[in-house]
Amino acid sequence: MKSRGEFGFIDYIKTHFPDQAGVIGIGDDCAVIPAGEGELLFSTDLLMEGVHFLRSESSPEDVGWKAAAVNLSDIAAMGGTPVATFLSIALPKDAQGEWAERFIEGYTQISRKYDVPLLGGDTTSSLRDIAVNVGVLGRCPSGKRLIRSGAKVGETIYVTGPLGDSAGGLQAILKGIDRIEDVEILINRHKRPVPRVFEGKVLMETGRVGAMMDISDGIASDLRHIIKASGVGAVVALDKIPCSSQLRSVCAGQDWDIYELAISGGEDFELLLTGPEGLKRYVEFPLYAIGQIVAGDDLVWTLNDEPVDSMYVGYKHF
Amino acid sequence: MKSRGEFGFIDYIKTHFPDQAGVIGIGDDCAVIPAGEGELLFSTDLLMEGVHFLRSESSPEDVGWKAAAVNLSDIAAMGGTPVATFLSIALPKDAQGEWAERFIEGYTQISRKYDVPLLGGDTTSSLRDIAVNVGVLGRCPSGKRLIRSGAKVGETIYVTGPLGDSAGGLQAILKGIDRIEDVEILINRHKRPVPRVFEGKVLMETGRVGAMMDISDGIASDLRHIIKASGVGAVVALDKIPCSSQLRSVCAGQDWDIYELAISGGEDFELLLTGPEGLKRYVEFPLYAIGQIVAGDDLVWTLNDEPVDSMYVGYKHF
Repeated sequence: MKSRGEFGFIDYIKTHFPDQAGVIGIGDDCAVIPAGEGELLFSTDLLMEGVHFLRSESSPEDVGWKAAAVNLSDIAAMGGTPVATFLSIALPKDAQGEWAERFIEGYTQISRKYDVPLLGGDTTSSLRDIAVNVGVLGRCPSGKRLIRSGAKVGETIYVTGPLGDSAGGLQAILKGIDRIEDVEILINRHKRPVPRVFEGKVLMETGRVGAMMDISDGIASDLRHIIKASGVGAVVALDKIPCSSQLRSVCAGQDWDIYELAISGGEDFELLLTGPEGLKRYVEFPLYAIGQIVAGDDLVWTLNDEPVDSMYVGYKHF
Repeated sequence: MKSRGEFGFIDYIKTHFPDQAGVIGIGDDCAVIPAGEGELLFSTDLLMEGVHFLRSESSPEDVGWKAAAVNLSDIAAMGGTPVATFLSIALPKDAQGEWAERFIEGYTQISRKYDVPLLGGDTTSSLRDIAVNVGVLGRCPSGKRLIRSGAKVGETIYVTGPLGDSAGGLQAILKGIDRIEDVEILINRHKRPVPRVFEGKVLMETGRVGAMMDISDGIASDLRHIIKASGVGAVVALDKIPCSSQLRSVCAGQDWDIYELAISGGEDFELLLTGPEGLKRYVEFPLYAIGQIVAGDDLVWTLNDEPVDSMYVGYKHF
């Protein structure tokens, strides 16, 4: 497909995100949004070809979905409601036609699912690699946003869903293993992560959560952020970390270390939070209790109630 | 210089942008800002190595300055006040140490000059090219923001300063001409553009401006956005477009077409606006009248009051 040119591409994007009353979206120097009430949340994530995705492995639609998903997840992590996204995209010559339009299809799918308009951004050329930056604006009632520093001694540590699927899917891609059905499910979890926007908002509304964040770098790394910010320690039972039946089955077949994938593998985008023992009573979705916040500043892993050495660390980019 | 690692780099950035009361900045899943009053403005720009800057030609400090400047200019273009910026940066291995820290120095210089805190962002690795995305949040009293669609027949077209310097500076770099003092001044205008934040706000406050935008792609391209959005035409006198004495001197010496640089050259980041004939009386900085908004939908260029063919077009990325 021939490229429509930069301004043609912007017009193409606009057909997917029509104007909204009271808001100025794509097409002026800035987007304009009424300030509204409460507090504003803002987050941004940059995805680079070759680091975050491979054109040979991820469809443009998948990259578009994921670029928005990881940002919506940051709003979910604070218990907020996403209001708008902003997309900057740098495209080398061979991605300016079909690739770009299919990317917008995937971006539009998730934007519609969460009812979040794209209100602005930037389009530019790139010498070699595709770069995609998404910014997201959200809202939360004043003082209600859930941050990393709120964990208190005695609280239970929860996650909202199984961990390790995304890392298992990535490993399956990288090792080129047979794509039986269980493997495809893991790969789909890697390519089309589901931000826990609904769950985050409900958890915020309970008023009972201590600290919350989303699991993007792997729980071993992410939980350290919570205990450092909160000035507490944590004990986590490896054997209580939820893992999907698909991950169990694939790890058994491939002789992969399921704990390593579940603990150090990133990009599950489940929520990690602390709260009272009975928190599950206040929500209608699964919450998995995996450990306790304790005094001190250590993160201790246990297996069958015995401490284990852990060489598991989360992902750092450099 | 050895890289500090991703989290060390984030800590380094935090030392330049200390915490502010009532705001959550760098370090949680989202930045948190009180919604405040009026309207929010948001813009974002992505700079790619090899397209927007060359590591061999621009110092890291200059790239840091410009990355923030182009975004502050978008807020200025609406007459708003910048509130916060968000920085996403993708760094290849050979830019993760000294380059990255010097970039932050330049970014900090302009942020302090305009008193705008950096409140969040993303750091990641890159295979090859540096990618820098800046998002900026601004504010404006409700309904007062100046947009592109407000130009009315009979209004005068103004710019806030000389055009073509940045394009002249870029051409001087690309052609490798002798860096006499006038050339250095043009190059500095290219590398360290000055966003017209103060001027934009004052113009907004006059309540007399029809349409406004910043000149990023070249006035030939940018003025077309105004006339298309406003449903009007325009007549612009090439010989009334302000050009600096340095640009005149360098163009004469190099036999360069000064009109081409002034009209098609982008990145001057002066403001382009329409308003009543006597608008200059309401501001204390220079405003240069260069033409008129007329009925129709044509953009006509004149020289000595005679229409001239124009092959001058602004920059498109693809």
